[in-house]
Amino acid sequence: MTENQAVEAFDVVDLIRTKRDGGELSTSEIDWLIDAYTRRYVADEQMSALAMAILIRGMSRREIRDMTLAMIASGERMDFGGLGKRTVDKHSTGGVGDKITLPLVPLVASFGVAVPQLSGRGLGHTGGTLDKLESIPGWRADLTNEQMFAQLRDVGGVICAAGTGLAPADKRLYALRDITGTVEAIPLIASSIMSKKIAEGTEALVLDVKFGSGAFMTDYAKAEELARTMVELGTDAGVATSALLTDMNVPLGLAIGNANEVRESVEVLSGGGPADVVELTIALAREMLALVGQPDADVEAALADGRAMDSWRAAIIAQGGDPDAPLPVARESHTVTADRSGVLSRQEALPFGIAAWRLGAGRARQQDPVLHAAGIDLHAKPGDEVVEGQPLFTLSADDDSRFERALAAVDGAWEIAPAGTVVERGPLVRQRIG
Amino acid sequence: MTENQAVEAFDVVDLIRTKRDGGELSTSEIDWLIDAYTRRYVADEQMSALAMAILIRGMSRREIRDMTLAMIASGERMDFGGLGKRTVDKHSTGGVGDKITLPLVPLVASFGVAVPQLSGRGLGHTGGTLDKLESIPGWRADLTNEQMFAQLRDVGGVICAAGTGLAPADKRLYALRDITGTVEAIPLIASSIMSKKIAEGTEALVLDVKFGSGAFMTDYAKAEELARTMVELGTDAGVATSALLTDMNVPLGLAIGNANEVRESVEVLSGGGPADVVELTIALAREMLALVGQPDADVEAALADGRAMDSWRAAIIAQGGDPDAPLPVARESHTVTADRSGVLSRQEALPFGIAAWRLGAGRARQQDPVLHAAGIDLHAKPGDEVVEGQPLFTLSADDDSRFERALAAVDGAWEIAPAGTVVERGPLVRQRIG
Repeated sequence: MTENQAVEAFDVVDLIRTKRDGGELSTSEIDWLIDAYTRRYVADEQMSALAMAILIRGMSRREIRDMTLAMIASGERMDFGGLGKRTVDKHSTGGVGDKITLPLVPLVASFGVAVPQLSGRGLGHTGGTLDKLESIPGWRADLTNEQMFAQLRDVGGVICAAGTGLAPADKRLYALRDITGTVEAIPLIASSIMSKKIAEGTEALVLDVKFGSGAFMTDYAKAEELARTMVELGTDAGVATSALLTDMNVPLGLAIGNANEVRESVEVLSGGGPADVVELTIALAREMLALVGQPDADVEAALADGRAMDSWRAAIIAQGGDPDAPLPVARESHTVTADRSGVLSRQEALPFGIAAWRLGAGRARQQDPVLHAAGIDLHAKPGDEVVEGQPLFTLSADDDSRFERALAAVDGAWEIAPAGTVVERGPLVRQRIG
Repeated sequence: MTENQAVEAFDVVDLIRTKRDGGELSTSEIDWLIDAYTRRYVADEQMSALAMAILIRGMSRREIRDMTLAMIASGERMDFGGLGKRTVDKHSTGGVGDKITLPLVPLVASFGVAVPQLSGRGLGHTGGTLDKLESIPGWRADLTNEQMFAQLRDVGGVICAAGTGLAPADKRLYALRDITGTVEAIPLIASSIMSKKIAEGTEALVLDVKFGSGAFMTDYAKAEELARTMVELGTDAGVATSALLTDMNVPLGLAIGNANEVRESVEVLSGGGPADVVELTIALAREMLALVGQPDADVEAALADGRAMDSWRAAIIAQGGDPDAPLPVARESHTVTADRSGVLSRQEALPFGIAAWRLGAGRARQQDPVLHAAGIDLHAKPGDEVVEGQPLFTLSADDDSRFERALAAVDGAWEIAPAGTVVERGPLVRQRIG
């Protein structure tokens, strides 16, 4: 509407006002918006006001699809057509102790499938897959497209950093949302995840959409809405997409951090590991393999007989890592013990995630480093019997001044009920959508 | 909540989330927020997301007061105690054709009162007082505090740019709101206006709060809420404050632009001028003079006998301007005529404001120049009888390519009803609060 923007198709302030007042943006408005944001004609300040308006007012299904397609159009689109392998990827909305990608990718790849997992770094209380893997000496997250292609062909599984060419508009918006309190908007989460995954060029995709206290979507209904939104977006774009809704009220496994999560992942790849991590790894692997024509793959066998482990080692070595090198260990640790005997009846994911973050396992700002050895090791899980004085969990950090704030975070986050109490938990995988 | 912000009292993302979810910010949170924004620890992106959340969720009376006081504390506070004169100022929330400050300040000053009018530039469809005055050759808006003090003492009336030391936090937020679709938030409007006016050091203040299609607050109830909020803020801070709620459904006067509004102001100062401009000038002058102990001042006489004009000329000269220099005239003009005879029954302020803006009288971005000669001259007002073919209004611009978009803005914004139709209009000054 303004004179000096006459060459532009729209006025960004008009668009913000429309959304602010509960209106709907047209396809051409959204196309223009994302293009103008990519060109930096639309400023971050404007986008963050719009993101807040979207969070509060919502977006229609059509607006979300338009947003996703516009994000994809803002950058390059990868193509693994010449690979001669089926391709499948997985995305988790993020949780506490969620290291599933680490055993899952080599496991699925061991069935002759290419898994192009373009991953991110952690922000906030949920960890980042790249941060975890970077605790392996020598391992590097940055690959060229050619290196990625070669590794997919020769090894099968690749976990690496998404290049800057993929959905660049989303990259800027994602960083912005994190600092502006607009992470939790379903339309923005869905379009952010799906634009990257569709641009990545995978033919199939399984979404691990988490609900519960440690998830971004604490509410089950909202997690379900997010899952349905993303499955529709993927399907519409020609990517075979399904989603599992999984419980994130309790940390996954026993390790929360970086190096300790790698250790736990290696246990799973060795045929052991905590029951919940194994269960979810297998469920997601079956789902991924089913989408690329192997519905009957015996994934348990691949974990038991070392094929998944071989696949893991090959991928780590291909990315410069030493799978046999010792992982970093923290200088200081602090163990919390049970103050009574009974049954551990509660262990809330979010406070433990925040505590690990405060210990240095996560970052507050994008440029902050992560302390690979920092984190939490749980010694008991809900439902376990505990005796007075037994270790409940151990905090690790390079600097013991961090313990106080980490302990404050988990204060009241667990509970010991009288012996014999039955702890009810719903199934880990609550629902399949797709 | 984040590790690397441990030295800060609060986490800005927590504060944004609180407001986003409809919560209330504490006094210490608001104090910290504005201080941290001034220190640039809180980024513009974060402030714009928060501004959007405030616009949609609102703020309590206590939060608004805290916000205002924190804005004042972000900068210097002026003091005219040593002037030996009473001080009174006026603020308008902005309208189309609102040049009232121009005749009002010298009129009130002619009664021996100091009027320290720190003004702004126009943004959006409402003009800026400094932009209008800058169409006078030589006139300069920037004065040092010493120059301002001397002019208040010697001349009485000063209209100048607010220095950067006054409520700097507000200055940044104001510019941000304009580009992020968050101008219309009552808590932000009230704290922005009142922080500057209180920091300015005036002992009394009259607010011209506009309602109707050409005002920021189109809704009467919202304008009233804004007026009450501001009167309370001023009174609480020890500034004698009252407000007039005035109609902005129709442009004020006959001139919309910059140079042409100066011309119309000079007509008023010469004892003539359009009835509505004269009426509002007198009403506001009476209100201002009453607040500083001159409730019976004969303001009509000061307009009629040249005292107000003398005061105007002295102030223009003091700021380097030549009150006798010809004002700029546009290169191109386009006149719209009546397509039938009858009574002009409608003339909407907002479309005419937008049209003047598109002609170049206003700016889309803070750094854009204003075309002083561009604007609109109305030849009839609602209630006036018109005959077919008679000029209704004239558009002026330096470039006739601007006419098309300006005409598109006013399309349907006026109407000619059959002869004899009675056009109902409420009183220009609808209510007094204070």
